[in-house]
Amino acid sequence: MNDILQIISNTLEQRKAVDSEKSYVASLYQKGLNKILEKVGEEATEVILAARDAEVSGEKNELVHEVADLWFHTMVTLSYLNVDFNDVLAELAKRHK
Amino acid sequence: MNDILQIISNTLEQRKAVDSEKSYVASLYQKGLNKILEKVGEEATEVILAARDAEVSGEKNELVHEVADLWFHTMVTLSYLNVDFNDVLAELAKRHK
Amino acid sequence: MNDILQIISNTLEQRKAVDSEKSYVASLYQKGLNKILEKVGEEATEVILAARDAEVSGEKNELVHEVADLWFHTMVTLSYLNVDFNDVLAELAKRHK
Amino acid sequence: MNDILQIISNTLEQRKAVDSEKSYVASLYQKGLNKILEKVGEEATEVILAARDAEVSGEKNELVHEVADLWFHTMVTLSYLNVDFNDVLAELAKRHK
Repeated sequence: MNDILQIISNTLEQRKAVDSEKSYVASLYQKGLNKILEKVGEEATEVILAARDAEVSGEKNELVHEVADLWFHTMVTLSYLNVDFNDVLAELAKRHK
Repeated sequence: MNDILQIISNTLEQRKAVDSEKSYVASLYQKGLNKILEKVGEEATEVILAARDAEVSGEKNELVHEVADLWFHTMVTLSYLNVDFNDVLAELAKRHK
Repeated sequence: MNDILQIISNTLEQRKAVDSEKSYVASLYQKGLNKILEKVGEEATEVILAARDAEVSGEKNELVHEVADLWFHTMVTLSYLNVDFNDVLAELAKRHK
Repeated sequence: MNDILQIISNTLEQRKAVDSEKSYVASLYQKGLNKILEKVGEEATEVILAARDAEVSGEKNELVHEVADLWFHTMVTLSYLNVDFNDVLAELAKRHK
């Protein structure tokens, strides 16, 4: 299952050659970095709110969805800037192994 | 290398039993959810600024560091709320496979 | 011109009695605090991006618009929670006079 | 009391000529726009968390403090970029009067 990040990364790379009307990611690439970063900011806020909700309700689904959204849009950011997400995993490995 | 997320998750779980003076994560757990979420907000902002810098300079290291910080603190959030990060990967797999 | 904040505050109070289909603010109130705070997070991100753009371009209009949006949505937050924005001005006066 | 924003704006302008070791604002100016915008992001997150706390507790002081911090750091942003905060009030007046 861990390979899902690699699968997403490959898909993001392929979207660079796709018509922006046929793909959400291609449309984000076409709008440019600010639009992608607005999504990162939005999703970070939604993680914060969902975490506060989860602490009260014990219900975790919304939080899982919002963290998935946030990680996905950080991967779009990396892909847009031609940075390999494996460099992030390598940085985490350097710190935590 | 993908297993690094599982290694971090295991480490975060172990930190719950550690003296808050002896571990950064244990001190975050002890301060509570708001302090953890402040870090998520801070790191999201730093990702946004580092992405803008990387677009201009072509230098990627700072962005890699900030995304690592952001992913790490979202994992602290999940761990604090007893949510398995594998649920996030499963959600991403459901959407993108 | 400074009285614009008081005018906005009065308008926000009046919107509490208005049909949510007839007013943007009334619809925000009806959706609840999370939706209002999502707007605060979004607008903060847009201020950050517009400030970075303004530094490069020297063009200030977008930044002025985004700060106006951010201040407005913090006033909606205060109004929703029945906090007088004058308490914020009083706190600033206490610190800076 | 509304004049407090003008007083702050004047003070921020004067800080541009002050030694960065003798003033918090002068030190922010010296560190540059990214550091100022990190503060905007931090304070926006703290407003969001304080608003959620205020909704539960009914206690408003923390929210008032955090909104004051956020407005102050947006004014530092404007001042750093030589944008008059009165342009923001004028924009709000145009929309809401």
